[in-house]
Amino acid sequence: MGGFFGVVSTLKESKADLFYGTDYHSHLGTVRGGMAMLNGKSFQRAIHDISNSQFRTKFDNDYRRFEGTSGVGVISDNDDQPLIIASHLGVYAIVTVGVVTNIQELVKELFEHRPVQFSEMSRSGFNPTELVAMLINSQESFEEGVRYAQSKVQGSCSMLLLTNAGVLYAIRDRYGRTPVVLGQKADAVAVAMESCAFPNLGYKLFRELGPGEMVRCSPDGVETVLPPGDEMAICSFLWVYFGYPASSYEGRNVEMARYRCGGALARRNPVEADSVGGVPDSGVAHALGYAVESGIRYARPFVKYTPTWPRSFMPPDQTERDLIAEMKLIPVPGLIQGKRLIFCDDSIVRGTQLAKQANRLYNDGVKEIHMRIACPPLLYQCRFLNFSRSKSEMDLATRRTISEIEGNDTDVAKYRDPDGEPFKEMVGRIRQRLGLSSLAYQRLDDLVAAIGLPKDKLCTYCWTGEDISKPAGCAHGCSRCERPCAAGSPQA
Amino acid sequence: MGGFFGVVSTLKESKADLFYGTDYHSHLGTVRGGMAMLNGKSFQRAIHDISNSQFRTKFDNDYRRFEGTSGVGVISDNDDQPLIIASHLGVYAIVTVGVVTNIQELVKELFEHRPVQFSEMSRSGFNPTELVAMLINSQESFEEGVRYAQSKVQGSCSMLLLTNAGVLYAIRDRYGRTPVVLGQKADAVAVAMESCAFPNLGYKLFRELGPGEMVRCSPDGVETVLPPGDEMAICSFLWVYFGYPASSYEGRNVEMARYRCGGALARRNPVEADSVGGVPDSGVAHALGYAVESGIRYARPFVKYTPTWPRSFMPPDQTERDLIAEMKLIPVPGLIQGKRLIFCDDSIVRGTQLAKQANRLYNDGVKEIHMRIACPPLLYQCRFLNFSRSKSEMDLATRRTISEIEGNDTDVAKYRDPDGEPFKEMVGRIRQRLGLSSLAYQRLDDLVAAIGLPKDKLCTYCWTGEDISKPAGCAHGCSRCERPCAAGSPQA
Amino acid sequence: MGGFFGVVSTLKESKADLFYGTDYHSHLGTVRGGMAMLNGKSFQRAIHDISNSQFRTKFDNDYRRFEGTSGVGVISDNDDQPLIIASHLGVYAIVTVGVVTNIQELVKELFEHRPVQFSEMSRSGFNPTELVAMLINSQESFEEGVRYAQSKVQGSCSMLLLTNAGVLYAIRDRYGRTPVVLGQKADAVAVAMESCAFPNLGYKLFRELGPGEMVRCSPDGVETVLPPGDEMAICSFLWVYFGYPASSYEGRNVEMARYRCGGALARRNPVEADSVGGVPDSGVAHALGYAVESGIRYARPFVKYTPTWPRSFMPPDQTERDLIAEMKLIPVPGLIQGKRLIFCDDSIVRGTQLAKQANRLYNDGVKEIHMRIACPPLLYQCRFLNFSRSKSEMDLATRRTISEIEGNDTDVAKYRDPDGEPFKEMVGRIRQRLGLSSLAYQRLDDLVAAIGLPKDKLCTYCWTGEDISKPAGCAHGCSRCERPCAAGSPQA
Amino acid sequence: MGGFFGVVSTLKESKADLFYGTDYHSHLGTVRGGMAMLNGKSFQRAIHDISNSQFRTKFDNDYRRFEGTSGVGVISDNDDQPLIIASHLGVYAIVTVGVVTNIQELVKELFEHRPVQFSEMSRSGFNPTELVAMLINSQESFEEGVRYAQSKVQGSCSMLLLTNAGVLYAIRDRYGRTPVVLGQKADAVAVAMESCAFPNLGYKLFRELGPGEMVRCSPDGVETVLPPGDEMAICSFLWVYFGYPASSYEGRNVEMARYRCGGALARRNPVEADSVGGVPDSGVAHALGYAVESGIRYARPFVKYTPTWPRSFMPPDQTERDLIAEMKLIPVPGLIQGKRLIFCDDSIVRGTQLAKQANRLYNDGVKEIHMRIACPPLLYQCRFLNFSRSKSEMDLATRRTISEIEGNDTDVAKYRDPDGEPFKEMVGRIRQRLGLSSLAYQRLDDLVAAIGLPKDKLCTYCWTGEDISKPAGCAHGCSRCERPCAAGSPQA
Repeated sequence: MGGFFGVVSTLKESKADLFYGTDYHSHLGTVRGGMAMLNGKSFQRAIHDISNSQFRTKFDNDYRRFEGTSGVGVISDNDDQPLIIASHLGVYAIVTVGVVTNIQELVKELFEHRPVQFSEMSRSGFNPTELVAMLINSQESFEEGVRYAQSKVQGSCSMLLLTNAGVLYAIRDRYGRTPVVLGQKADAVAVAMESCAFPNLGYKLFRELGPGEMVRCSPDGVETVLPPGDEMAICSFLWVYFGYPASSYEGRNVEMARYRCGGALARRNPVEADSVGGVPDSGVAHALGYAVESGIRYARPFVKYTPTWPRSFMPPDQTERDLIAEMKLIPVPGLIQGKRLIFCDDSIVRGTQLAKQANRLYNDGVKEIHMRIACPPLLYQCRFLNFSRSKSEMDLATRRTISEIEGNDTDVAKYRDPDGEPFKEMVGRIRQRLGLSSLAYQRLDDLVAAIGLPKDKLCTYCWTGEDISKPAGCAHGCSRCERPCAAGSPQA
Repeated sequence: MGGFFGVVSTLKESKADLFYGTDYHSHLGTVRGGMAMLNGKSFQRAIHDISNSQFRTKFDNDYRRFEGTSGVGVISDNDDQPLIIASHLGVYAIVTVGVVTNIQELVKELFEHRPVQFSEMSRSGFNPTELVAMLINSQESFEEGVRYAQSKVQGSCSMLLLTNAGVLYAIRDRYGRTPVVLGQKADAVAVAMESCAFPNLGYKLFRELGPGEMVRCSPDGVETVLPPGDEMAICSFLWVYFGYPASSYEGRNVEMARYRCGGALARRNPVEADSVGGVPDSGVAHALGYAVESGIRYARPFVKYTPTWPRSFMPPDQTERDLIAEMKLIPVPGLIQGKRLIFCDDSIVRGTQLAKQANRLYNDGVKEIHMRIACPPLLYQCRFLNFSRSKSEMDLATRRTISEIEGNDTDVAKYRDPDGEPFKEMVGRIRQRLGLSSLAYQRLDDLVAAIGLPKDKLCTYCWTGEDISKPAGCAHGCSRCERPCAAGSPQA
Repeated sequence: MGGFFGVVSTLKESKADLFYGTDYHSHLGTVRGGMAMLNGKSFQRAIHDISNSQFRTKFDNDYRRFEGTSGVGVISDNDDQPLIIASHLGVYAIVTVGVVTNIQELVKELFEHRPVQFSEMSRSGFNPTELVAMLINSQESFEEGVRYAQSKVQGSCSMLLLTNAGVLYAIRDRYGRTPVVLGQKADAVAVAMESCAFPNLGYKLFRELGPGEMVRCSPDGVETVLPPGDEMAICSFLWVYFGYPASSYEGRNVEMARYRCGGALARRNPVEADSVGGVPDSGVAHALGYAVESGIRYARPFVKYTPTWPRSFMPPDQTERDLIAEMKLIPVPGLIQGKRLIFCDDSIVRGTQLAKQANRLYNDGVKEIHMRIACPPLLYQCRFLNFSRSKSEMDLATRRTISEIEGNDTDVAKYRDPDGEPFKEMVGRIRQRLGLSSLAYQRLDDLVAAIGLPKDKLCTYCWTGEDISKPAGCAHGCSRCERPCAAGSPQA
Repeated sequence: MGGFFGVVSTLKESKADLFYGTDYHSHLGTVRGGMAMLNGKSFQRAIHDISNSQFRTKFDNDYRRFEGTSGVGVISDNDDQPLIIASHLGVYAIVTVGVVTNIQELVKELFEHRPVQFSEMSRSGFNPTELVAMLINSQESFEEGVRYAQSKVQGSCSMLLLTNAGVLYAIRDRYGRTPVVLGQKADAVAVAMESCAFPNLGYKLFRELGPGEMVRCSPDGVETVLPPGDEMAICSFLWVYFGYPASSYEGRNVEMARYRCGGALARRNPVEADSVGGVPDSGVAHALGYAVESGIRYARPFVKYTPTWPRSFMPPDQTERDLIAEMKLIPVPGLIQGKRLIFCDDSIVRGTQLAKQANRLYNDGVKEIHMRIACPPLLYQCRFLNFSRSKSEMDLATRRTISEIEGNDTDVAKYRDPDGEPFKEMVGRIRQRLGLSSLAYQRLDDLVAAIGLPKDKLCTYCWTGEDISKPAGCAHGCSRCERPCAAGSPQA
């Protein structure tokens, strides 16, 4: 998915803030990272592969060499960022987080102008950040440019622009799908996606940007350039999986929302067991909530080997990925043999690893495995953020099951109702395939309540297929389409 | 402290076992790592600094280049390991874990022989492993040599020797202060310090070595060369802090012992509170046990930023270490403001970080902080393993407090009795200095019970100053000395 | 200055040709290198700093990882190359060699179009290759684009374009200031700046491009797209200094031209001496020619330490550069003490090192030093290629001397005539400042004769200030201006 | 072969002297390098593989990090050096240059002592420097130890010892096979193998050590500890090939000796030709001497691509080595086509590359190739220095030819006489195999005269098979043996 951090200040310590602040977004991506710092009128920049070493290790030399007090940093998905762009608007650094699903159309449109070119083609395909910059540069001011870019991009796009005059613009996606938060200390303003980046760096959370809002930050303060819009569709999955436990979005803390998720699961799907555990790390907080509500003790039948498996590395080879999945968790036999275990996890994507772990537990002598999932079944692949969790909708455990039942998966919508027979049939089959004693998913209304925001402020597309946006070429608004409409599904 | 892993087999996959098996000891050291693999009659070897990057990242190239089916690996404290030694006994690789506190005497004695020399002086001072090898080589067989080395070394020494004939010797320290466990699968035998290294690599835990036992391992099986001794003094701190939760020593699992530790703390020192939390990562399991016993919910007012702070890096500069201590934990305000919190931790060494965290919590609006420590107060610095947790006894919070009360710290022994007034005075002052609402330490008998072994099998020196060994120059046996006797304290 | 190599073929071995062929241009630059290879429809690319390690060492990993049979490589001055560009013309890799002295004007002009932007701003300032690509993309075909770019660029620009359809375009600068040569073997066409790159890779020199000529290369052959122009101004300094001895341009070999240069110097400026030597490496071939003509033995009073000082590294710090200048040459005392020595060198830029070396020779006991320079005095700084030999015209030994004589250096033209008094006065003063027994420069007509091309085909601007081009804003044509006219001097 | 440099001083600049001084020995080895610097009482050390990058590039970081004013550096063959040794004599750094051909015997003897061990076994086999150190440590003082080591080692051994008390001992091999020279400047003494390391670092050549001499160097001066012996056998090949042109040994400069070599070849073997050239780099100076004596012009029909092929890299794979041999030299067609060329080279080992180059020249149109070799035919493989030029005597062009003539090569001695028929037959066959128009070798008396030392001071073993030493087990002294006697030939 990616995340960014920016700072504008007059303080020498801001270099450390940029370094550590960007690092605090490392859970949002494992492939590439970048930093740019303004030194006088020009930028220093570094971009590294972080797939086999952590952000701080890779950027340590750059960090020492950089000079300045303002900069932007990013954990990105695949593309090189930050870019340093020169245009009629001047010279500036830009980072973006989101996904552009209509790249091909936009490029085609832009190529009608001469002599438009894209220079950042060194990795595979067009660099979405370069594209967004060009949309901005097609207008006569940053404000107009940002508004124009937001109107053209399908998907989502939050961004930071740091001009070589030392102005930092922060822009939240049009529908606020990703959060953008402002922090402040004397003589410094910082912008982050994760509010948890602030307290250890001495920033007070100042405020969150509204959907589509654009602000102009200087060491002296923050000024709104484009006001927030009325419509919001912030990603629910931030609370379920992506977000860091210590962060809050729209005032709702992640850790506590997960406790409530677990609590709801326990109320709705009680079962007798010896202990409740969370699949590390994403299921832990859900499980803690479950334990409190159910009165069943929380225990760790699996311990993650955090010293060297802190996060999922991304080797290109699937065999190696499987190996890693099995290596990072170590069983505690005394907590498994002859036990009835409840496990909480954030979601089921393909279900492959889960099936393997269940199988291992049976070999290790477990008596029962009861799986509790913190969100409803994933039925639709995200079109608004760059989820890397599944490559195609067809990989989803649900879709494969529906295809199995129906022969095809065209009639997905009927599997959304948790009280309907199709839903029960689908879940039953998934349970069986995974070899579980019982399997229960969160209900959407329970999830919404656990998050604590009105349902119409949340994006729930991956469970409902409905969305606030009305992509070009869609007559009735995509929110009424059962499947991604003509505008097409996201690119690989 | 350090840890090792060895494998002898006829299987190609053993290279991966060596790589991942050694990696699973990474929590035991953060400075240096090494691997040696036997290829035909000669050894391939690699040693790297792992202070700023993980074992696997640093050894990835070596891993690919190595060829063979038997090898030894080590996470070491400071010294280069494995060494490849040639002597009249042949050519072999050696790794050791422990500490040698009488290096200077041993070297002086060895220099009486001509033409003895030490070649591994490139880092600071004598390499203890080279010294131990020389003690072995001073005798006419590996068996006699190992017995001789064990009799000469003050401190402790577990080790692995892999000869270029493909025989792997595993030796546990004379008093079994560190564990050595054997794992087996078809055509392969593995030796580890942490039994948690076995399940993911497909080894069945075969058996643990007894104190001072030496075994000869080949792909076909294991044969005892030196039988185990009667006396045992296994380090209690393995269960309190060092050991990995999924490991067991002498049949006692770490995670479960910690649950019992927390349970005992809760029974013995009840207090009303809103939640119980563990100081990550070492206090977590203790806190889970406390929560179950007390009925108070477990919650995480601090979340560790595991994606990039998986373990404590060891920058030489104390300022930077402090910075890191503050960076790795992120507060969750909603779980802190106006709350009465219980925290469990493994132990208090200097107490500096704890005081800072307490202060921060008060700034964040906490109402009460109740600290529960999983072991008794640390009064004596370890002389048997290379603890890097404090540089000198004088750094210990207890010793500083005693000095404050008494003007000096000569009369330490009277502070051992948890029911005595001196103990209460000491703990009271520590509580006050750290700014805690309440502070309670585990009682030694509760700790021993939680571990589940007879007290006389455990080393409890750091709390009692008494030990099974009778160092040279100590008339009455060190177990009766209040302080390290004439034989001297461990070297810096 | 920089150099490039490209290959288009169906052969697997072409990857090696690209690697070694680019490497054979290493003498033309010491700062950055790059390679791009077409794999299917997309490009693999690598760019590295080569200032402290050689091209092959730095690109070895990329070389192994690349796949394909067609590619382009470059040794560049400062800027990142190759760029992979996408435009309405498609996706292609581009490398350029030359200098663009009117970047600011061109950028300003381009910014009048929306939404033009430059993305390659990460190093200092605009990337000239990105600019040239944009000029090409402003037209409707590669042919028109190249013609347009050539008409707009002040300075010079030879280039290679490799489209992702596998077509390689090679374009020589409008006035042919740099050479571009074609080589051929079965199923492969290669393009180079240095013909010496061909024989060891098995290519036959097929033909040289004419000035401004553009060809379309495919594995099957070469087709002219834009015909060569009539006017040529190939850089004379290629024969004097830049070019590799084994190369030929316009059919004239470098090594042999240098022998003739040395011969002419000997005929025109005879002197008695014990030996003739060349200042390594640039003066060696000139000196060999001098020795033959004069009958005085060639000897090496200085030997370059080639094993580790193969080329001049470029540390940013002048102190360190001076150190290096002194470290790379080692004196042979027996060839110096009491001797009368003739030294040949290609040219005198600032003269600083030469003065130091002369001083050292006197300390080592030399009797006489006679300096012979292979070209006339450098009076004008190059405006057509990116010479990095002096930072400003004011650094030139000649200009400083003229300023000394005249109080300013406005009247440079009168110092061009080698038979005039001003010239003699200038050379006399330089000789004196450098502490030489005698100093003689080549005469321009002798140099032209040694090269062997008609004078009107050669650029001699650095000696005469006259040029074939008529820069914008220059009423009478720059060839009649004594100094760079209003169009301005090259950028720093 | 290897080379070393040491410095003992009170000057801060000595760190640079050590770095650059060691680097100036890079032509003596291409595999490993090392440096150790004394900082207070302890040593900093670095050892790197220099097979794919130069000494300075590889040691740059160490150079910056090191602190101190005294140190030793080495270019070594294969083994790790410097070693930091602790023994009853204290702690010291040691480097050695030479070869130990009786390692196995010495080790066996040492293993009779307990508890002798060798710790530096990580690369293949025993580290000769560790062995030599142990021989030294077997005695009661450095003086006695060095004398003992020299008496035990078969082969040769020059060395430097730097004690942690800041004393630098320099020892030349017993027969002075390698040179050791002393340089001096205020407050600093340096020791080198190549005197050319001194002038650019500001050292005056103070004096050369005699055979077997041991001196004690301090910043204040040099004191003889063991006086020089009477017998000398300095390697003649230093002047022919190994030595750097700017160096002198026993007062005889290398460059000038090579001029005399070439002169003698011209006098003894005249032939008409268009030019004389040297096979780069080893044949150049010989060819310059030939040109002067013969009156035939010196020219470069091949130019070495020095910018990136400064020295022969050592890839393990022979195919790649052959590739490199062909890549580093570039032909100049105009100096080849239709020409009669004389080439000088230092020696012929296997002759393989020479045959290939000759073949290429014929393809390029050469008319005649006359080869002149600066020394007599190599008949015996060196047993006194670690020549890496041939792997076995059987590889030598001479031996293969003798085997061809005789059916075996037992009767080698009769091929030594340049006036005998066997010699002429052998040379004639080699000439034919290599495809040369003519081939002439230097006569030994001409070579000795060119060097300028008495024949009995020179080692000429590789041409005569006779040597000054009387190895153990050789009844009549090896100088009378036709072939290496029972003491055995050097190890692989």
